[in-house]
Amino acid sequence: MLDGKNRQIIFASRPEGEPVPTNFAYAESAIPEPGEGQVLLRNRYLSLDPYMRGRMSVAKSYAKGFEIGAPLGGGTVSEVIRSHHPKLAPGDLVSAFGGWQDYAVANGEGLIKIDPTAAPVTTALGVLGMPGMTAYTGLLNIGQPKAGETLVVAAAAGPVGATVGQIARIKGCRAVGIAGADKLAYLKDELGFDAVIDRRSPQLADDLRAACPDGIDIYFENVGGAVRDAVLPLLNDFARIPLCGLVAHYNDTRVPDGPDRLPQLMRMILTKRLRIQGFIVSDFNAQYGDFLRDVGGWLREGRIKYREHVVDGLEKAPEAFVGMLRGDNFGKVVVRVGE
Amino acid sequence: MLDGKNRQIIFASRPEGEPVPTNFAYAESAIPEPGEGQVLLRNRYLSLDPYMRGRMSVAKSYAKGFEIGAPLGGGTVSEVIRSHHPKLAPGDLVSAFGGWQDYAVANGEGLIKIDPTAAPVTTALGVLGMPGMTAYTGLLNIGQPKAGETLVVAAAAGPVGATVGQIARIKGCRAVGIAGADKLAYLKDELGFDAVIDRRSPQLADDLRAACPDGIDIYFENVGGAVRDAVLPLLNDFARIPLCGLVAHYNDTRVPDGPDRLPQLMRMILTKRLRIQGFIVSDFNAQYGDFLRDVGGWLREGRIKYREHVVDGLEKAPEAFVGMLRGDNFGKVVVRVGE
Repeated sequence: MLDGKNRQIIFASRPEGEPVPTNFAYAESAIPEPGEGQVLLRNRYLSLDPYMRGRMSVAKSYAKGFEIGAPLGGGTVSEVIRSHHPKLAPGDLVSAFGGWQDYAVANGEGLIKIDPTAAPVTTALGVLGMPGMTAYTGLLNIGQPKAGETLVVAAAAGPVGATVGQIARIKGCRAVGIAGADKLAYLKDELGFDAVIDRRSPQLADDLRAACPDGIDIYFENVGGAVRDAVLPLLNDFARIPLCGLVAHYNDTRVPDGPDRLPQLMRMILTKRLRIQGFIVSDFNAQYGDFLRDVGGWLREGRIKYREHVVDGLEKAPEAFVGMLRGDNFGKVVVRVGE
Repeated sequence: MLDGKNRQIIFASRPEGEPVPTNFAYAESAIPEPGEGQVLLRNRYLSLDPYMRGRMSVAKSYAKGFEIGAPLGGGTVSEVIRSHHPKLAPGDLVSAFGGWQDYAVANGEGLIKIDPTAAPVTTALGVLGMPGMTAYTGLLNIGQPKAGETLVVAAAAGPVGATVGQIARIKGCRAVGIAGADKLAYLKDELGFDAVIDRRSPQLADDLRAACPDGIDIYFENVGGAVRDAVLPLLNDFARIPLCGLVAHYNDTRVPDGPDRLPQLMRMILTKRLRIQGFIVSDFNAQYGDFLRDVGGWLREGRIKYREHVVDGLEKAPEAFVGMLRGDNFGKVVVRVGE
């Protein structure tokens, strides 16, 4: 057994609404020992992602919920420290699901080796990882962008939204991004979005209408709430809505008051022949090779850019997570756990 | 000009809620004269279909609304009486959009010749016409049935629902039909539905759960309302909802009270990775040949059956139409306009 300790952030209690500090607890435990066929990982970077809020709820979701009393789960860039696995050696860097802690034991399943000379290793948690692949697979399989169409995406400076917008532009679409006011210049000047909108604009619907003179053909849905309400009336016939997140609702504690707009939405789906489809990135695991080839290529060519919001120290993860749900981050949130 | 008169049912006023007699007016006009390239049609059979209620509303829909003061529109089986069209001759039978009247003039576009020796001519308005093709294209393109899956369809004795259920069974699915109590034996014994449910059952949700022990993979949505509410909780991951009609809502006059279930539906689409997609049959016009080949073949082989509800006399059309919206019909409603 290794000397030292394993720092962990424990899931202490389920949040009601926005998570608060008491939902998290700091703990230290012994460094675990890898069994037969297993590896010991030391986490260098931890990914913070909105989907984690869903796993904190008891409500049925596509993923198993986090377990109270255990370290929170999360994607990591990790170094293999000890290996009883034939294909992994100490010193290898892998993308893993190492969780909110210093060390983790894994059996090799789901570990993907990272070439640290190809791109900064943190991209394995962002543009070349789960968020980038969410953008790529949802947009191409469900959004089906065609040249000349208009795409709208919110949380557009986040790792999913930023990638969606840039791929849409590569496919010849007009990309309209919604984000916090401090991020709009970046979206327009750095990422090349055709139009940008302040998410807190008091006239969001009007701004969106002005930004989409030909209506909306693809709404990449990752937020819900006021953005969705502004988008729906502007959808063109045959519009597609890939739906991978609803961050505006993750902290909801009750069903909103009426009127009940569900029948109205169904009527709109009918009359406009919309396609609304939910997905999670693992539904498209078979396309991982295509994703790496395409997005990796666009990244090297400078056609796709990304930005990271690096938080220093595992103990800062809870605060950074709550801030991310509010949209305080600017780019993909990664926690530097240790070097 | 032909001697005689053209009896017409005129769209007199827009219904609010369920249509009433004063929304319709009887009129007689001169028999129209076909111009260059046109034909004069005498309508033998008029199709009554739920989508017509949508065209009576001012609300934007996929189709242009009916015009006040003009004859109501509708699909017909018609005989060519006079022809200035190179490909049509007097005596030809065609499927047309001749409307609620004895005679119509058409330019040849959209007319499809009918072979009266291949099948009863009225099937061109039902199982081999628009309703049958709605069932075929929506189920195969969006529903994507796979052997062993469970499909649910309401209005299951109507021409769309009955065809959906039978094609689903041909594809190896378990077909569950919802219809009026007087039609359930027919669905089960004649059409081969695996389970049937009375649409007015006071415990619709429980009945549906019992009929779908493995959940629901395809909900062919043509009604909305209480059936949809019973279906949603039973949907399996990756379920598909082809949406071609919402007859339970066509007479709605107001947005229903809360709570607002729209965000809840979006969350369900996300967590279950549902696909909900609206369509109208004309979106799949390119598949007309496939449809005729497949459904025509199944019909000849006795694998698909159909039933018609024939109403005698054009003047009965308004009453029959209102009855159809209530579900009083048993099978495809056609009005015998004249022989």
